[in-house]
Amino acid sequence: MSYADRWLLPDGVEEILPAEAERIEQLRRRLLNLYHRWGYDLVIPPMVEFTESLLIGLGRDIDLLTFKVTDQLTGRSMGIRADITPQTARMDAHSLKRRGPNRLCYAGHVLHTLPRSPLATRTPIQVGVELYGEAGLDADIEVISLLLETLGVAELPHLHLELGHVGIYRALAEQAGLAAGQEETLFELLQRKATTEIAAWVNDNVSDGELAALFLALPALAGDSTVFERAQQLFAAGSAELQAALDELSGVADAVQRRYPGVDFYFDLSELRGYHYHTGLVFAAYAPGLGNAIATGGRYDHIGEVFGRGRPATGFAADLIALNRLRAPEAAERAGIYAEASDDAGQWRAIQQLRDSGERVVCGLSGQALQCDESKCDRHLVLEGGEYVVRPFADPDEAEPR
Amino acid sequence: MSYADRWLLPDGVEEILPAEAERIEQLRRRLLNLYHRWGYDLVIPPMVEFTESLLIGLGRDIDLLTFKVTDQLTGRSMGIRADITPQTARMDAHSLKRRGPNRLCYAGHVLHTLPRSPLATRTPIQVGVELYGEAGLDADIEVISLLLETLGVAELPHLHLELGHVGIYRALAEQAGLAAGQEETLFELLQRKATTEIAAWVNDNVSDGELAALFLALPALAGDSTVFERAQQLFAAGSAELQAALDELSGVADAVQRRYPGVDFYFDLSELRGYHYHTGLVFAAYAPGLGNAIATGGRYDHIGEVFGRGRPATGFAADLIALNRLRAPEAAERAGIYAEASDDAGQWRAIQQLRDSGERVVCGLSGQALQCDESKCDRHLVLEGGEYVVRPFADPDEAEPR
Repeated sequence: MSYADRWLLPDGVEEILPAEAERIEQLRRRLLNLYHRWGYDLVIPPMVEFTESLLIGLGRDIDLLTFKVTDQLTGRSMGIRADITPQTARMDAHSLKRRGPNRLCYAGHVLHTLPRSPLATRTPIQVGVELYGEAGLDADIEVISLLLETLGVAELPHLHLELGHVGIYRALAEQAGLAAGQEETLFELLQRKATTEIAAWVNDNVSDGELAALFLALPALAGDSTVFERAQQLFAAGSAELQAALDELSGVADAVQRRYPGVDFYFDLSELRGYHYHTGLVFAAYAPGLGNAIATGGRYDHIGEVFGRGRPATGFAADLIALNRLRAPEAAERAGIYAEASDDAGQWRAIQQLRDSGERVVCGLSGQALQCDESKCDRHLVLEGGEYVVRPFADPDEAEPR
Repeated sequence: MSYADRWLLPDGVEEILPAEAERIEQLRRRLLNLYHRWGYDLVIPPMVEFTESLLIGLGRDIDLLTFKVTDQLTGRSMGIRADITPQTARMDAHSLKRRGPNRLCYAGHVLHTLPRSPLATRTPIQVGVELYGEAGLDADIEVISLLLETLGVAELPHLHLELGHVGIYRALAEQAGLAAGQEETLFELLQRKATTEIAAWVNDNVSDGELAALFLALPALAGDSTVFERAQQLFAAGSAELQAALDELSGVADAVQRRYPGVDFYFDLSELRGYHYHTGLVFAAYAPGLGNAIATGGRYDHIGEVFGRGRPATGFAADLIALNRLRAPEAAERAGIYAEASDDAGQWRAIQQLRDSGERVVCGLSGQALQCDESKCDRHLVLEGGEYVVRPFADPDEAEPR
């Protein structure tokens, strides 16, 4: 790299400059305050762990997203975290060992080897919550409610919420007696909603005509709550597991709708995001005109088992940077007060008092002209009749220190 | 790794559990608020950059501390940041390009390949400030003042502040005409305060008897401000550069002392921490009984040059986790309110109102017994005469939901 381009950042690696950083920090605080008020305890997991702890149960995607380095103390492989959820699962299973429900929240950088989509960042700031220890729908309802509150705090009311349940496809696959490899292939086709290929594959692999029809109907079972009526008719002959999954999905949606009547639901019964990882209800928030989900979550009940303590689990996560970029621009923050360079102890006391009262005071440095646009000051500290007082800059020309 | 030890963390890699995480978060906010009030703008640099951007001008230490990974998009070497300061220098030189003084602050995880000292963490949370664009002592005074304020906010008033100036040794080495390799060797000996070895080396390498005496005197020039009197006598024949460095050191100490009369200074004229990197005044805060500095900083004027824009620079950084661990324990935070599982819309409204008013409300989940110690609730929400009211748990037995 020549000297001239040492300042280049890798593609998809972002630095956040002052105005945006301040807004992200404010949003971060509001979200962590929200989670605290809902009983979620903050944890700060490390940036790095042994690869074998970090990649448990999450399938190949997260493995490929994770940078690996060698631990110089042990020679073992470590991963730079690409996701914080498995870290909280480890904490729940091992470090905290709470008997009852365990509510955790976090906010921190993660790192991806490659962008998840063409325009995605490789350095998101993941913020999220996880609720361990409750298998019932109450937990799903609480977590989805908290996702809606998150979008509210982020001033993003016009999103819609997509709900699905991986148990629907899982039950159908079991009923059809699909082998693991077959289940995987059809899963991949369904994820792409590749209807022609699905039809060909189902024709070749599912002999039971009724079940085949169900698989073919699955990709079209998406839309508003009328989906459930169609599903009830279609799946009348479905297994008890399939019925239970459908009931869970509509039950959670009803409960959330009662709390948040304005929420715009979109159901997708073939939604299989995180299929290898999730075990029940899955959900995602989408913004109009944006292809990628703004926040994703769902139930992942078995993840703790690899740490010796399987617990029911559900939660969601979002990228704080992306959340912030969708927010409407705010009124400019209050500008600061400029204080000319001085050795006077009285001026110093005045400056410190102003700062203690919450004001931003920028001190002049000897021989530097004030750059008003850069220092964002609209007032200055002046000595009048032996007292230091704050006065607005009378006009822009006066903003230069004399 | 067997299933049984998947929960192990690498040595020196720390996870922060709820009680401590909450205190760290509060300290983080107070410090960033402090920096904001002093006119410092928050930036969020990325976790990873091209190695050639990250390791500029910092010498071999930081290179060895930095994990390297390969960028899959370009095949180039990237480093996981082991220090945030070079990132802000790049931002100052290239991304922000402010004409006047540029004040930046940050807080974020860094990662070290090896612990910096036997008990050090490899995953500190670095918090710090940098002031670019001002070569005068005003900048050093402001940054040291802000370090003292930082220690105040962290409730660590009993620290002492060590001040040094790398210009003193640099001037002596120049006066003695030491070659780069010689300067390096003696530097290494001085850093260890290896007086016998220093004597032998100086005897072999410095022919001028007067200068040799100065080198030998250097390690002993440490202590309170009386050091300056001894130094003035010893260095009367020193070069103008040496005199200037001494004057800067005592001038800054005087100015800071006027603002903070209670501060406990310790001067060390052979202090050479970060010698390859620093160019003037250097300083560090120490806690009684703790070998490692709690915060370190100093002037590093040439770092921006590799990005095409050299600017005067000074700043300091500390580890937020270590800072927090030195704080006196606080009164326990306010406990929460427990609300039994319920479908009642009135209860939900009551819960949301309490949360909006800043209360922490933990919702019961169907079929879960309340774990009072875990949920940290000392009150519950009860229905009395058709209204939801908050009541203390009458006695511990009552804390179990009926």
